[in-house]
Amino acid sequence: MNVSRPAVHPVEAPPLTDGDAQILQRVRMKDIQGMPGTPGGLALRLLQLAFAIAALVVMISTSDFTSVTAFCYLVAATILQGTWSLLLAGVDIYAILVRRSLRNHFVVCFFTVGDGITAILTFAAASASAGITVLIGNDLNRCAENNCASFETATAMAFLSWFAVSPSFLFNFWTMASRRG
Amino acid sequence: MNVSRPAVHPVEAPPLTDGDAQILQRVRMKDIQGMPGTPGGLALRLLQLAFAIAALVVMISTSDFTSVTAFCYLVAATILQGTWSLLLAGVDIYAILVRRSLRNHFVVCFFTVGDGITAILTFAAASASAGITVLIGNDLNRCAENNCASFETATAMAFLSWFAVSPSFLFNFWTMASRRG
Repeated sequence: MNVSRPAVHPVEAPPLTDGDAQILQRVRMKDIQGMPGTPGGLALRLLQLAFAIAALVVMISTSDFTSVTAFCYLVAATILQGTWSLLLAGVDIYAILVRRSLRNHFVVCFFTVGDGITAILTFAAASASAGITVLIGNDLNRCAENNCASFETATAMAFLSWFAVSPSFLFNFWTMASRRG
Repeated sequence: MNVSRPAVHPVEAPPLTDGDAQILQRVRMKDIQGMPGTPGGLALRLLQLAFAIAALVVMISTSDFTSVTAFCYLVAATILQGTWSLLLAGVDIYAILVRRSLRNHFVVCFFTVGDGITAILTFAAASASAGITVLIGNDLNRCAENNCASFETATAMAFLSWFAVSPSFLFNFWTMASRRG
């Protein structure tokens, strides 16, 4: 029996392990802060959530927001934005705790579409509210009989929430494009 | 004299030409319709321009748009959008005529930033105008004494212009990301 035949011996495969390590290193290198599953991404989600809640609370604290459609729309948009950001913050916390990279193509695609939709809705609501607030305050000069300060604060908070969503959307879109491009 | 020495003879370099052809083919394969320098991209620019001009003309045809800040802002935003789209349509026509690929990194980066800014401004103007139009029409029921139809048309045109800008922005951003990612 020829025991020195290489095919009979169980051999280890060091090149494969090296390859894995290289791939792992390359993925790690592309983990920019702000992407889903990173502490930066979690911080963005918490900011979105905080500003959306602030806009919502300030707007519903005014008694007459229901008389203006744009303000009702702002309330609806901030509820949607807050829910989405809360869910994604949960996903980020999970990913950070179990040290899992959220780089699955479908996951990134889903996050991108969701971020895009919520960002557009929040921005539209903020812009519409800003238009109404400026109309009441500057064009009609009726701030005395309206809660201009509250409307302005809620609008500003909605804009800040949108500012925090935009990087999430761009990071996700970037990840999607650089994987498939 | 040794005439058969290869270094003395002027030799052609077929491998380089092959490489060029390969690069050219790879770039051509990624030329999706809608990207700058393609007929699809030019069509998008012309749509943006047409809708921006339509929104502008309809809005300034109303006599009382100056009394509402949001409508003045819509006029300014559509002028900016129209100018930008006109310039880029010119660049696209030039690129198509001389068959030049607009894939320089700085050019793509410039187009992406410009598209992003004009898209955001146009969308904000359209949303603010929509908020005011809904306020006048539905909340206050004062369409009889206002040009509701014109305001609504101008708002719709501005939204359509934004719809045409968004693909341009996304295509450019995608190109940027897939090159650098």
